[in-house]
Amino acid sequence: MAQKPSIPKGTRDYNPVQVAKRHYIFNTIREAFETFGFQPIETPSFENYETLMGKYGEEGDRLIFKILNSGDYLNKADEQAYLEKDSNKLTGSISEKALRYDLTVPFARYVVQHQNEIEFPFKRYQIQPVWRADRPQKGRFREFFQCDADVVGSTSLWQEVEFIQLYDAVFSALKLDGITIKINNRKILSGIAELIGASDKLIDFTVALDKLDKIGEEKVKEEMLGKGIPQLGIDKLKPLFSLSGSFESQIERLKDILDASDEGKKGIQELAFINKAISELGLSTAELELDVTLARGLNYYTGAIFEVAAPKTVQMGSIGGGGRYDDLTGIFGMKNVSGVGISFGLDRIYLVLEELNLFPETVSKNVKVLFINFGDEEALFSLKAIKYLRKHGVNAELYPDAAKMKKQMMHANKRAIPFVVLVGDEEMSSNTFTLKNMISGEQSNVTLDVLVKEVK
Amino acid sequence: MAQKPSIPKGTRDYNPVQVAKRHYIFNTIREAFETFGFQPIETPSFENYETLMGKYGEEGDRLIFKILNSGDYLNKADEQAYLEKDSNKLTGSISEKALRYDLTVPFARYVVQHQNEIEFPFKRYQIQPVWRADRPQKGRFREFFQCDADVVGSTSLWQEVEFIQLYDAVFSALKLDGITIKINNRKILSGIAELIGASDKLIDFTVALDKLDKIGEEKVKEEMLGKGIPQLGIDKLKPLFSLSGSFESQIERLKDILDASDEGKKGIQELAFINKAISELGLSTAELELDVTLARGLNYYTGAIFEVAAPKTVQMGSIGGGGRYDDLTGIFGMKNVSGVGISFGLDRIYLVLEELNLFPETVSKNVKVLFINFGDEEALFSLKAIKYLRKHGVNAELYPDAAKMKKQMMHANKRAIPFVVLVGDEEMSSNTFTLKNMISGEQSNVTLDVLVKEVK
Repeated sequence: MAQKPSIPKGTRDYNPVQVAKRHYIFNTIREAFETFGFQPIETPSFENYETLMGKYGEEGDRLIFKILNSGDYLNKADEQAYLEKDSNKLTGSISEKALRYDLTVPFARYVVQHQNEIEFPFKRYQIQPVWRADRPQKGRFREFFQCDADVVGSTSLWQEVEFIQLYDAVFSALKLDGITIKINNRKILSGIAELIGASDKLIDFTVALDKLDKIGEEKVKEEMLGKGIPQLGIDKLKPLFSLSGSFESQIERLKDILDASDEGKKGIQELAFINKAISELGLSTAELELDVTLARGLNYYTGAIFEVAAPKTVQMGSIGGGGRYDDLTGIFGMKNVSGVGISFGLDRIYLVLEELNLFPETVSKNVKVLFINFGDEEALFSLKAIKYLRKHGVNAELYPDAAKMKKQMMHANKRAIPFVVLVGDEEMSSNTFTLKNMISGEQSNVTLDVLVKEVK
Repeated sequence: MAQKPSIPKGTRDYNPVQVAKRHYIFNTIREAFETFGFQPIETPSFENYETLMGKYGEEGDRLIFKILNSGDYLNKADEQAYLEKDSNKLTGSISEKALRYDLTVPFARYVVQHQNEIEFPFKRYQIQPVWRADRPQKGRFREFFQCDADVVGSTSLWQEVEFIQLYDAVFSALKLDGITIKINNRKILSGIAELIGASDKLIDFTVALDKLDKIGEEKVKEEMLGKGIPQLGIDKLKPLFSLSGSFESQIERLKDILDASDEGKKGIQELAFINKAISELGLSTAELELDVTLARGLNYYTGAIFEVAAPKTVQMGSIGGGGRYDDLTGIFGMKNVSGVGISFGLDRIYLVLEELNLFPETVSKNVKVLFINFGDEEALFSLKAIKYLRKHGVNAELYPDAAKMKKQMMHANKRAIPFVVLVGDEEMSSNTFTLKNMISGEQSNVTLDVLVKEVK
């Protein structure tokens, strides 16, 4: 094979530094999750075909990777579909498994399947890869990790309060100061829909409203009219255009605006409750912001809606999101299980940390000490010392071959190993070690115990 | 949907306790790998179809999970195969990706693809799931994790010495004392083949020899003759039947037996070198044992062959294995890259630790303290304390609803949460907390700082 091998588009190899950085993020999130009382579960990479199909809309169905049945799979192929050469229709008969598309549906499936072993409210987290047959593009991959934390089995708003604190805890631990946690409530959006007299135009309305900063009030109104939102509705909601100031003052304004909508008022109450609690508890580095244009996953969320924005110094889409949903497990026949959850956008968080240079220098567990190999006798003497170093938690190794010293030193350099140890006849007879600091160039002759101290 | 959902056969859901135990094993292995200077890489879950196919033999090709192309995949289907309804022939034209079958071929692909960025010798480890369309049975799954460490780019035997120490370090860290690291050398097997005058019967010979303990010398000889091994060969190798005693004495005997085979003698030299080094360095809890019947992956390994046996008190197949291979990357056109590596059998190690009760009690990061919820005012007061506890590394949470106290206490019990905190008017006015030990039943009124100390 003359051509170098490659990997499928939209997938990635991770080199040691990248793995170390990714695990640093995972571990930080994992630790915060556990401090907050969330417990990990893991589900299989592939689910039964029928578990996933039909859960993400038509577009989602298309983007799910299906696994071809093993053996003589055409034997059970749908005959009609085969005759018609209809790919879409044939799939279900030659594939009975599909790769996980997100962590939400497998979680719902898990809750229903294991409902008798689970103690509710159930707080779970899950950090696993998902796969989507999306067209790959910058920042969009066909294999990527999701990090989700959810609670199911309680409608208490204290959980929304907890999730806001959890976001704050994770991003503070990552030293990513200045993130904004945006919050909205589906019930406020429903109230708005009621008032503009066009529930089906709600998304058009919020999308247009979201552009206020960029294009100004007049242009926003034009867009709304163009989308078929009645002038009367726009007039009624004019006060939304000047909604600004503190969380509290926005709440007060919203009370006026949505006075005619019971559901809207309920949403305001919920937001006010959450905001009061957060004010009392305080956030370390994050800010909580009310954003009535926030409408992500509108068809899915039933209460709070969250989205996390990176610090304003960085150009980046949302780095997290979530909300309250009232019927997660309904798709599998288990009704009335309310849930609320958040997720972290790992790939984007990685890019932000990289851009702001926030990965700790110690993140990569690189080798601290390389012992130069001068021959079998020296190697054996060295390995005894290496064993001792490792016992004391120092990552150490021997260059495997008695190659030219220059080559071995170059190897240490290329791998950015900070210390090199030289062992010759003299060292062996005096039971000492010549330690060279590869950064300063300093060299000293030390005992094993001093060696451990020096490199630690 | 009336029926409870399920997962594909051969796959598993992991509940929080299982995840914690699995990660305990992963983390222990990972830490040892890094202490020994191995660096992590990760590769995509699926590879290009042609990267995997043809690398594992015909049986392997069948067991690889293929991913169906997206969209109108029948459009590009091989017409002839489609007409003939030939599943096998059709697959390559409707699938261009396949799930990773092991970590070795992706590693070889990685090394070749990234050869210009890699500094050799390259010591990498990889802990990721693999998938096989095997018939599921007890202890055999369609999705399971592999843990591999390999060095490529050096033929030094010091690496074999290091891998034996690494096995010892990992199993000692897992407190799994008394494992046996069996070692053999392909060159010794080649020498045996030379001497019995039937290279193609070598596996039959070793399989029969392996039964010596169970069925005795006469039956073993019968089996060998039955398999077509000439009497003359069996006679020549008779001394193998009484091979026992220390590593050193076995080595001495082998020298006599294989005196006529240069390759056999080379194998003995290698084993002697490794054994001498290990004797000098010592092993913490493992034992090194020479086993000339060890022939795993015979067609693959070219030097040392390793296999790890669980402690004799446990009924379990091998829990690890590996060896030296001389042409890992040849399949992708990069010649002369010698490698040596080992792997850990995660699922079996899990079962052994479970059976011997070796998982630490602290392995599950369960919640330490549950605050009972008596209403919004108390809840807010509690959350302030919870925030403080979490800052001090204590996993703590609030019961989300102001449910009946009995229900909340039951919840703590069912989740095996060791401490419960009760906050009422009195506690709030005196800024104290009533702490209940759920195991002893003891109850005390404490300040926040004492609370932290008590539960830690």
